Amino acid sequence: MSEQLRRRIFEELEALVLIDPHTHINPHAAASTTLADIMGYHYYTELAHSAGLPREQIEESGLGSKEKVGRLVTKLGDLDNTIQVSWLIEMCQEFFGFDDERITTDNWESLYDRAAAKMAEPDWEEQVLSHSKLEGVFLTNDFDDPLEGFDTSRYIPCLRTDDLVFKLHEPSVRQRLAKATGIEVGDAKTLRAAIGKLFEHFVSKGAKACAISLPPHFYPTAPSSDSTDLDAQLQFVLSDSKARQERLNEFDDDLDSEEDVVDFATHDFVGPFVFWTLAEMCAEHSLPFDLMIGVDRAVYKAGVYQGQDLYDRRTTLYYYAELFNAFPSVTFPISVLDHTANPELVSYAWIFPNVVTNGHWWYSNIPTFIETDTRSRLEAVPESKIIGYYSDMYKLEFALPKFRMYRRALAKVLAENFCIDRGWSESRAIELGKRVLRGNVESIFDM
Amino acid sequence: MSEQLRRRIFEELEALVLIDPHTHINPHAAASTTLADIMGYHYYTELAHSAGLPREQIEESGLGSKEKVGRLVTKLGDLDNTIQVSWLIEMCQEFFGFDDERITTDNWESLYDRAAAKMAEPDWEEQVLSHSKLEGVFLTNDFDDPLEGFDTSRYIPCLRTDDLVFKLHEPSVRQRLAKATGIEVGDAKTLRAAIGKLFEHFVSKGAKACAISLPPHFYPTAPSSDSTDLDAQLQFVLSDSKARQERLNEFDDDLDSEEDVVDFATHDFVGPFVFWTLAEMCAEHSLPFDLMIGVDRAVYKAGVYQGQDLYDRRTTLYYYAELFNAFPSVTFPISVLDHTANPELVSYAWIFPNVVTNGHWWYSNIPTFIETDTRSRLEAVPESKIIGYYSDMYKLEFALPKFRMYRRALAKVLAENFCIDRGWSESRAIELGKRVLRGNVESIFDM
Amino acid sequence: MSEQLRRRIFEELEALVLIDPHTHINPHAAASTTLADIMGYHYYTELAHSAGLPREQIEESGLGSKEKVGRLVTKLGDLDNTIQVSWLIEMCQEFFGFDDERITTDNWESLYDRAAAKMAEPDWEEQVLSHSKLEGVFLTNDFDDPLEGFDTSRYIPCLRTDDLVFKLHEPSVRQRLAKATGIEVGDAKTLRAAIGKLFEHFVSKGAKACAISLPPHFYPTAPSSDSTDLDAQLQFVLSDSKARQERLNEFDDDLDSEEDVVDFATHDFVGPFVFWTLAEMCAEHSLPFDLMIGVDRAVYKAGVYQGQDLYDRRTTLYYYAELFNAFPSVTFPISVLDHTANPELVSYAWIFPNVVTNGHWWYSNIPTFIETDTRSRLEAVPESKIIGYYSDMYKLEFALPKFRMYRRALAKVLAENFCIDRGWSESRAIELGKRVLRGNVESIFDM
Repeated sequence: MSEQLRRRIFEELEALVLIDPHTHINPHAAASTTLADIMGYHYYTELAHSAGLPREQIEESGLGSKEKVGRLVTKLGDLDNTIQVSWLIEMCQEFFGFDDERITTDNWESLYDRAAAKMAEPDWEEQVLSHSKLEGVFLTNDFDDPLEGFDTSRYIPCLRTDDLVFKLHEPSVRQRLAKATGIEVGDAKTLRAAIGKLFEHFVSKGAKACAISLPPHFYPTAPSSDSTDLDAQLQFVLSDSKARQERLNEFDDDLDSEEDVVDFATHDFVGPFVFWTLAEMCAEHSLPFDLMIGVDRAVYKAGVYQGQDLYDRRTTLYYYAELFNAFPSVTFPISVLDHTANPELVSYAWIFPNVVTNGHWWYSNIPTFIETDTRSRLEAVPESKIIGYYSDMYKLEFALPKFRMYRRALAKVLAENFCIDRGWSESRAIELGKRVLRGNVESIFDM
Repeated sequence: MSEQLRRRIFEELEALVLIDPHTHINPHAAASTTLADIMGYHYYTELAHSAGLPREQIEESGLGSKEKVGRLVTKLGDLDNTIQVSWLIEMCQEFFGFDDERITTDNWESLYDRAAAKMAEPDWEEQVLSHSKLEGVFLTNDFDDPLEGFDTSRYIPCLRTDDLVFKLHEPSVRQRLAKATGIEVGDAKTLRAAIGKLFEHFVSKGAKACAISLPPHFYPTAPSSDSTDLDAQLQFVLSDSKARQERLNEFDDDLDSEEDVVDFATHDFVGPFVFWTLAEMCAEHSLPFDLMIGVDRAVYKAGVYQGQDLYDRRTTLYYYAELFNAFPSVTFPISVLDHTANPELVSYAWIFPNVVTNGHWWYSNIPTFIETDTRSRLEAVPESKIIGYYSDMYKLEFALPKFRMYRRALAKVLAENFCIDRGWSESRAIELGKRVLRGNVESIFDM
Repeated sequence: MSEQLRRRIFEELEALVLIDPHTHINPHAAASTTLADIMGYHYYTELAHSAGLPREQIEESGLGSKEKVGRLVTKLGDLDNTIQVSWLIEMCQEFFGFDDERITTDNWESLYDRAAAKMAEPDWEEQVLSHSKLEGVFLTNDFDDPLEGFDTSRYIPCLRTDDLVFKLHEPSVRQRLAKATGIEVGDAKTLRAAIGKLFEHFVSKGAKACAISLPPHFYPTAPSSDSTDLDAQLQFVLSDSKARQERLNEFDDDLDSEEDVVDFATHDFVGPFVFWTLAEMCAEHSLPFDLMIGVDRAVYKAGVYQGQDLYDRRTTLYYYAELFNAFPSVTFPISVLDHTANPELVSYAWIFPNVVTNGHWWYSNIPTFIETDTRSRLEAVPESKIIGYYSDMYKLEFALPKFRMYRRALAKVLAENFCIDRGWSESRAIELGKRVLRGNVESIFDM
């Protein structure tokens, strides 16, 4: 009975047309052109590498698309259990008529060719969107993205701000900022002005969110009202390397390399200041500020591209309370990297009006964790404050299997923990499911 | 089959008359008089506020009971998913003949009036106790409660000690202590004597436990045998504000305000000393010491009354090992605020004879977490050391839906993980359920 | 349907003959001789003590086997719920024809006698191995074990290294090391040489792994290239107590006892150096290095033998990233003590090619946690990198109930989360189960 109930609820949820509130889609090349676009997704390259395929073979320069897929396929037998490979199979079945259980060294070539032919059809992008029941896709735009040449009502801009908070010491970032805003940043005042310009540009182009990913040991605190220290640190960070070398002796003796001082100044002064300024701009422009909390970059330095990041499980929202208190008018959709951070997120979203739970991010994005996290959110967070899911995809084809995984988990929770455990009617459960899948995306991002 | 099994076990557990081992009931006004007593419970005010109802509307001075309920009802549509609202519906169905699925702006007024009429019946308190199958209710008494004017065999005193550990610097607390004990506290010796008096009073009135809630960064350690430092800190804390101002220069330069020094002295010296003294008195008077670990007060400062507290998920029992070692004769029923602290609690209760698992507290008190926590405790902690549940209620009507939620979770675990997974007979599973629901309350609190 | 499916998969998994990749078996006395060998296992003594049996009664000197069992039996009624007691019942049913539901003061003596008679049969060890479907058993050998007098293809040596990392300051450890290697250790160079000798000996005897358990606050870092400091610390640790006393003044004023300095030197210098050297030797000799992370010894000092250890739940793999990066050729099968550490382990095994998930250790070794941990690993870690289970047993009889508990959990996950949730065929699910139960033990430990 329970399985049939799940299926019926799942089918109702499947019928819903969605807006995907966080992706890495390039709106100028949204769909894939070969299977290498799909299997080149870091989930497959990193898992193949984890199972023993040398990085050099995966990232060999000049490697052709077909050859790359062929190499990755040799490792699929060791990854067959993973939910990520189940997405791959589901994409191939849904989009390319694949009907085997596994992709193997025997069957991949014909699949590759069939997929390539299919993707070459002129309306492939439309086919994918329509078949995936997707009508809106949030982007992740660099701060200097002109946001031109695509339909911003379908591909919705989102201002991604990691570079501003963590990489201002890189000359290329400062140059991009100057070019995008016409402002040469030299101190807190000009930096704030430049950030303001970016927000004006994004909002004028229909941006619906500002977003950032944050490392485990980032502590958002209000800048001191005395900005002397900050300006000194900021000027150091904004200097060129030669000027920094000359000023090294101004700093603490423990920090004896340029890199150390840049890290310290960024971590303790400049990063928090830029971050706080972003929150102020979100308040001013009524933009939600997506926080993706807990990722530490390049932990596994020899890993494949985008397959190097991990976390420290001691990351806590406790350090974010000051931020939530300081910006009551800003909505913070929060994603956590680690499943064990979810109960804390549930509690913070339960108490803080401006904290919203947002999807199931990255290492938490597997059914074991999604089911528990979803159930706990649905039991304790106001239903208006739960954003069910986002795909985080780089290519459009991924929305279908990822959202389907989520819909299955959601249907299971609704069937077992609402209909059976709590005696809800099926229609009431479906209504709740639709709200977290779609309705809240519209209301929270003001669409 | 599994669902019928759950139901049968649940019905057996439902038949059991209980003692509720932790509540905030006022024995002089135990039951509600209007729906505002029920919906004014912080779970509803904080969730309504979290969903967008301004605090000013909830806590407007002079607001009438009916108007307050009317305002809260406007937000119930956004909270309909929560388990807390399911308690509300269940109370209204069980006690007031409500038979809709939801409380809405259309049906709440008649419900309000019907409830008020029902609650006005002279034996309402008896009706609630009897219908809820409740024969004993632990209280949470201020240390200076005279414990008079009520039946202490039904409403069982419990000495709550937060104020003594964390608020001795407040003149009103010192005055209450002096009045209650006849002792003017000025140093460690008189403080210990005063605490001893409180215990004598409580024990003479039939108190069955001492209790406290503790913040994440509290570290219980034995006071140094050299009490010079302690007495200095204690005298500072016990001084009036003027005397403190004059003595500020005795302290560390980093602490430059009176508040900082009070915090430091309380956190590092006075609080741990009082706490340790409480444990000593528990040993002397054979009282269990309920520890509710991990709550940080006023994290969300603009929140509604009692809706401001959260936690830091890095809280660990590791810091309590010294305490558990030092007081082998004291039973410590432990509650943890954060679901992810439960595995650690299971391990500590597995090893330490004097550590007992106690209910499902606050942010952990939702079925997702209760089921897992219950199952893990039942698999690894001696069954004599598991206190299944307490309601934590402020008004009697809450015992019914809260214990029912727990009974459902317990029945599910017994059915699925004992009868099905381990082949237990139904009667054996029910026997275990009854022990954690009722038997252990009697044996652990010596009733 | 789901229960029948589970049963069918379980039966297929039960048919598999296994190699147990981590135990504490003494190959010279592998099986039990009386029920006291079984009930003397620390799981039973510590649980009986936790339920109130005084340590003095359990560990009374000169206590006879039968009397000891009789005393422990008096507490079984309070432990009847635990999964550990279910192992005991299952052993008695499988091996000694016991057919009651519980062991009580009424039935234990005849059971004791029957068990003793059975265990006295000359081929008892063979009977247990055969009935338990066990063909290989990894040992935990002291570094100075001669590894002689037993069949190393059945009882597979494993070099246990806790003493080398944490106890080099004990004269007996240094003497054992000198005796085993013929090298008098005096500095980093001779210490490295001695460790090299141990590896040569173990590898020549067919050892298949190096292993260690690590405390919560151990931080593995590469030794500084300047070894002056290290040699000073090492010489201090290696000195006799008298020489240490004389040199105390060389050290930090904060450390004023010999014990403090030894702890500091071991924790900060010698331990990490030895640990790093072990990893280098694992690389050189192609041995996997089993890390069992998170146990703090003697937290409950008054506990029974082996029933004193607990943990700090803030332990994180984040500190191990440097190690995993430094030794790409060494496979690290990782066990975590705390269930809430499992999601982090899943993520690290997902990314690092040399990190492998290893079993369900100690406080995590109960079905509640095994099911979730197993499911998450099977959804996100390459299937070639999951070692399903080890028994950790001290006596052979435990393999049967412990592996059976795991097989039940695994069958449940395969049935519910692979066959039902993901539509896998039964045979495909069984194939995956067999790989994590047996296949990976062979491939990862190069058997």
